[in-house]
Amino acid sequence: MTGTKSMSIILHSGDLDKAMAAFILAAGAAAKGMNVTMFFTFWGLGVMKKGGADKSKLSKMNMGGLGTKMMKGVMKKNNVATLTELISDCKELGVRFVACEMTMSLMNVPKEMLISEVTEIGGVGTYLDAASEGHVNLFI
Amino acid sequence: MTGTKSMSIILHSGDLDKAMAAFILAAGAAAKGMNVTMFFTFWGLGVMKKGGADKSKLSKMNMGGLGTKMMKGVMKKNNVATLTELISDCKELGVRFVACEMTMSLMNVPKEMLISEVTEIGGVGTYLDAASEGHVNLFI
Amino acid sequence: MTGTKSMSIILHSGDLDKAMAAFILAAGAAAKGMNVTMFFTFWGLGVMKKGGADKSKLSKMNMGGLGTKMMKGVMKKNNVATLTELISDCKELGVRFVACEMTMSLMNVPKEMLISEVTEIGGVGTYLDAASEGHVNLFI
Repeated sequence: MTGTKSMSIILHSGDLDKAMAAFILAAGAAAKGMNVTMFFTFWGLGVMKKGGADKSKLSKMNMGGLGTKMMKGVMKKNNVATLTELISDCKELGVRFVACEMTMSLMNVPKEMLISEVTEIGGVGTYLDAASEGHVNLFI
Repeated sequence: MTGTKSMSIILHSGDLDKAMAAFILAAGAAAKGMNVTMFFTFWGLGVMKKGGADKSKLSKMNMGGLGTKMMKGVMKKNNVATLTELISDCKELGVRFVACEMTMSLMNVPKEMLISEVTEIGGVGTYLDAASEGHVNLFI
Repeated sequence: MTGTKSMSIILHSGDLDKAMAAFILAAGAAAKGMNVTMFFTFWGLGVMKKGGADKSKLSKMNMGGLGTKMMKGVMKKNNVATLTELISDCKELGVRFVACEMTMSLMNVPKEMLISEVTEIGGVGTYLDAASEGHVNLFI
């Protein structure tokens, strides 16, 4: 195990641009051979609900007139993966997806409402175990 | 001291959901025996003003219709601690609270306006000293 | 190199208060002798566009009536550096500025539109190399 670096990401935001950043970082790290754990909490859990990835929107309405729809068009033109594709890439690369138990309870989201890629449910202890081993720990 | 892990959190946001995440993480880490430092800056300092914890609101108006008031009701029903209770828990567990000196000066917040749990005032150097020793460093 | 700590910051936000926090942290760390890498992505790249630092606004309209203009006035009165000054300080202190290649392509921002302080363009791999060596890694 010596030499294996690890990364943890708490995805708290449900914004399209922040979720994209999180999955791009996770996929990149996993592709480099790092152990990656993503922990989905609050609005971030919404991204992992069935149909949730398609519904997420940009955190800012505009940047030089760039809205959510336009951004998606530009992403497609630039061959940037969609959020759904990024989630699938991460899963294939072995990224560990953990849904926050408390958020599920607060937001009334049973396991059945989550996409099948989420196979684990955990609390703050689960996160801290992963993060304490981590070399790169981000809150997004 | 060998084996003692540490965590630092900059709470920059004053949003209810982000502040809750910060204190839940801090309390969880302190309960596990980690050294935890929280540094309150910009809007995050507002949470530590007298009466500030009660005033914080969700960063998003809605998630399936879930507003601040409704969220607080759901939290109560699910026995999730309020922000005020979480702050008190963190303090009892030995979490170190540091108010950002520059923010206090910029926002015109004298020490007397902060809750008594905040016993320390510091700058970026204070934060960096704690974070450099830290195993988990988050900006929330 | 033993003993040299390092820091990485992803600046994803274009908000004035978050950008300020990022550059204040970076300048403080560099002044302490740490190796600092800043990676500019999404809205954060906008701050590094020519004229971009002056255009950034507070993430919240108000905190006790404190708007962007008023905040800038208060900063000046308190001798807090402007964003432009902070960027310049960071550069002089040796902070490494990396523009996100994918964001440049998505937002249609050629290198010529960026301020001259940004001398490097990179992807997620560039970031991960810096962050894996880092002792303090923040996503802002």
